[in-house]
Amino acid sequence: MGRVTERRRVTRVRDGVVSSRPDTLVAEEPLEIRLNGKPLAITMRTPGDDFALAAGFLVSEGVLGSADELRNIVYCAGATEDGHNTYNVVDVQLAPGVPLPDIALERNVYTTSSCGLCGKASLDAVRTTARWAIEDLPEAPVRLEPDVLSRLPDRLRAAQRVFDRTGGLHAAALFSPEGELLDIREDVGRHNAVDKLVGRALQQGRLPLRDVVLMVSGRASFELAQKAVMAGIPALTAVSAPSSLAVDLAAETGLTLVGFLRGTSMNVYAGEHRLALRTAAGRA
Amino acid sequence: MGRVTERRRVTRVRDGVVSSRPDTLVAEEPLEIRLNGKPLAITMRTPGDDFALAAGFLVSEGVLGSADELRNIVYCAGATEDGHNTYNVVDVQLAPGVPLPDIALERNVYTTSSCGLCGKASLDAVRTTARWAIEDLPEAPVRLEPDVLSRLPDRLRAAQRVFDRTGGLHAAALFSPEGELLDIREDVGRHNAVDKLVGRALQQGRLPLRDVVLMVSGRASFELAQKAVMAGIPALTAVSAPSSLAVDLAAETGLTLVGFLRGTSMNVYAGEHRLALRTAAGRA
Repeated sequence: MGRVTERRRVTRVRDGVVSSRPDTLVAEEPLEIRLNGKPLAITMRTPGDDFALAAGFLVSEGVLGSADELRNIVYCAGATEDGHNTYNVVDVQLAPGVPLPDIALERNVYTTSSCGLCGKASLDAVRTTARWAIEDLPEAPVRLEPDVLSRLPDRLRAAQRVFDRTGGLHAAALFSPEGELLDIREDVGRHNAVDKLVGRALQQGRLPLRDVVLMVSGRASFELAQKAVMAGIPALTAVSAPSSLAVDLAAETGLTLVGFLRGTSMNVYAGEHRLALRTAAGRA
Repeated sequence: MGRVTERRRVTRVRDGVVSSRPDTLVAEEPLEIRLNGKPLAITMRTPGDDFALAAGFLVSEGVLGSADELRNIVYCAGATEDGHNTYNVVDVQLAPGVPLPDIALERNVYTTSSCGLCGKASLDAVRTTARWAIEDLPEAPVRLEPDVLSRLPDRLRAAQRVFDRTGGLHAAALFSPEGELLDIREDVGRHNAVDKLVGRALQQGRLPLRDVVLMVSGRASFELAQKAVMAGIPALTAVSAPSSLAVDLAAETGLTLVGFLRGTSMNVYAGEHRLALRTAAGRA
């Protein structure tokens, strides 16, 4: 079974002084995801939570929406030349009657036969494959206090156990609207960390995640916004900048997108109706 | 033609005070790369340097090694519903006689029919597809001074023009061993930034890049180390941590891999023979 960290010898240079010592690195290994036995995608990931990663990946792609559509996930029995199971190939078996996707899946991106590929096509692909619209329950609308959001980055950082040892991992976490940490995953790939969160939620029958905030270290790309939308998550917050296409997707789907969440400052790019904001005038 | 940045309205919250203003975001759009007319991969990228990106991607995959293997790169004439060319699909046409890859290419990762997928298989794939070994010319070995490397992060940061406006881009740059900035590219995807550098070098007939240092913002993953190796680059430096598999690939191929390059400190994970190091004793 793969390990989350590995040890390697490193030559340290500090102000011209050289020393050699063991160092802890984040582990990176390929994972092949098969669907009903057929290879679908390969991702470079940090080993661990592989079944959740595979399940979450398929939620992001619109293949899975609930635990009962999933029959089983297994490690393939293949082995390296010296006979060890690599635990780097998982096969996701769908429940009987669940349709196989008829699209050629690239890594998290739909291919198209048209030559008119564009941002709009990417947005359309999400809309046509999404299982749920992002919509708050009338009896329990999601309302986010800026003060609560401001505390999320420190809580994310405090919970990053592997990062402390390696400095080399991205993190993604689910918080309640009240700021309670619900789940966190670390991975060399931020998209993998989100897939692991979403896959776990699917396995536990918690999709769509109507009442959580997804927080990611670093930037908010289209791919991460897509994963939030496909899981029904109403709010995505990031420490750094979003891309144009992430903002467009959020605006189109009703996702609340917050970037540059630092201290008591933040930028709200879409879905600001969920934020409990007072205008400058209203503050007096 | 796509733009590098786009404007969107943002709601800013600063210490509870809310304001609305236009904000500059890094543009993100899908790019489909076709090879002799056949769709090969889609990557989410910042528009610009698309031909270089496509060429560099194919260098990373072992398909291209020199400019004369390339017949042409063109934008497909496809258009959106309203008749605009999206400039998001490029077709790379190989020169007559250049073999098409017989492998199924996923995004930057080779698929395998074996169930024994593992880190070693990823290393093997690089070794079997690499056009050149990383080896210094006997008459001009690459020698790197730690003092010179220490200056690269500030030079990279100073040259990041789009980052200054958006805070949302990764960067990759080529430096001479003496620390001169040779080329820099910014992109929402760090792998794209490296592909753009390498593709430009291919178009200019400068492969293998035997006499440069590749510097990347952020972390050094296997994928980035792979791209360095496939371009014949002898040294990869990163501001943050490498992964285990990046270190393994560097050790196996002779790539000098430097991480945590901050101030006068750095960690050398492989290929330290290129660094002009004095031991603590030798310093006295």
